[in-house]
Amino acid sequence: MSYPSKLLEKAVEQFSTLPGIGKRSALRMALHMLRQPKENVELFASSIVGMANGIKHCKVCNMVCDEETCSICSDPRRNRSVVCVVESVRDVLSIENTNTYNGLYHVLEGIISPMDGVGPSDLPIAELEERVAQGDVKEVVLALSTSMEGETTAFFLYNRLKKYDVKITAIARGVAFGDDLEYTDELTLAKSIENRQPFKI
Amino acid sequence: MSYPSKLLEKAVEQFSTLPGIGKRSALRMALHMLRQPKENVELFASSIVGMANGIKHCKVCNMVCDEETCSICSDPRRNRSVVCVVESVRDVLSIENTNTYNGLYHVLEGIISPMDGVGPSDLPIAELEERVAQGDVKEVVLALSTSMEGETTAFFLYNRLKKYDVKITAIARGVAFGDDLEYTDELTLAKSIENRQPFKI
Repeated sequence: MSYPSKLLEKAVEQFSTLPGIGKRSALRMALHMLRQPKENVELFASSIVGMANGIKHCKVCNMVCDEETCSICSDPRRNRSVVCVVESVRDVLSIENTNTYNGLYHVLEGIISPMDGVGPSDLPIAELEERVAQGDVKEVVLALSTSMEGETTAFFLYNRLKKYDVKITAIARGVAFGDDLEYTDELTLAKSIENRQPFKI
Repeated sequence: MSYPSKLLEKAVEQFSTLPGIGKRSALRMALHMLRQPKENVELFASSIVGMANGIKHCKVCNMVCDEETCSICSDPRRNRSVVCVVESVRDVLSIENTNTYNGLYHVLEGIISPMDGVGPSDLPIAELEERVAQGDVKEVVLALSTSMEGETTAFFLYNRLKKYDVKITAIARGVAFGDDLEYTDELTLAKSIENRQPFKI
C-alpha cells in the first residue's frame, strides 16, 4: 500500500510492530490518533515512554513494579515459604486474578528456548536457586506452559533445585471447566484420569 | 485487574484507547514495549507525536498529506473532471489499491450523523460545493457506505449539488465476487438484478 504521507507511513510502521497488529489495524490506529486532540496524543506517547524509562524489576522476584521490591514480595500477609515460577508478568496477573494463591512468585521473563537463542543463563535462574538455598522456601510450584520450551525449562529447574530440601510441584493438568471430554486431547484426558482426586461437594 | 505498577497501568490504559483494543491486548502491548530497547520505545512515541503534530490536510480534497496539496491532487496525470466523495482516508487508500480510478477525491473525514451530533456544517461540504461551482468538475461519484448515515449524507450532497451542471453518480451495489447468491441479502440481490449489465468476456 502506498501512503499519502511519510509521517502517516512511519506511524503505521510503528503501530504494526505491536504484537498481533497487522498493517490494516495499524493504519486504523494511526488515523484514530489523527482524530484525537493533540494533548491526548502527547499523553499516549508520554505514558509509554514514561513506563519504559521508569519501571523497575523487583529485586526478589523480578516482577515489574515501581519500587525496589514489588507489592507481592513486600506484603507481610503472603506465605513466604511457597514460590511459584512463571514465564511472564501476565502469568502472575492471571494467577492473582484467581484469588487462590497466597505465596510469592519468581518471574523468569522468558523460557529456555535454544531455537531462539535463550539459554538458562539468560533467565534469572541463579537468583531462584539463591532464594531456595537460603532455606526459607519450602515449596517451588512450576507453573510453566506445556510447550516443549516449558517442559525443558521445568526439567532444567528441577535438576537445579532437587539437591535442596524443597518440595518441587507443578500445576495440575486436566480437563478444563466447560470442556467436552470428547474434544479433549488424549494427553490431557490421560493426565486427568491418572491424577484423579477424591470427589468433593 | 490490579496492576503491579502504576506506570504499567497508565500505559495499559492508553493502549486500550486504541480502536479494537481491550484491556487484555493493551496489557500485552505494554509488556511487549517493556521488552524493547529504550530507543525503539522512543521511536514509537516520537513517530506518533510527530505524525499528529506534522500532518497536514490537502487544501483541495482534505486528504492527509505532508504538503499543502496531496500527491493525488497535484498529480497532472489524474483526471480533474471527476471527484469521488468518500468518508475517510482509508476509503481513498482502498480505492487507490484497486488501480481503476484516475480522478480526484473529496474526503469528508466523517459522515452526517445527527445521533452523534455531526451535522453538514461539521464536514467540508461547502468546500466540495465550491469545487463543483468552479465548473471544472463534470462528475461527482458518491462512494459512501450504505448505512443510514451514508444514505443521509448522499441525499444531502445530491440536494446541494443538483443545481450545478454536474453528473452525480454513486458506486454500484451488487453481489460481491465470491459471494453465494443464496446468502446475499434481498436488497443487494434486487439491486444487482435491477442494474444488470451487458455480458462481457
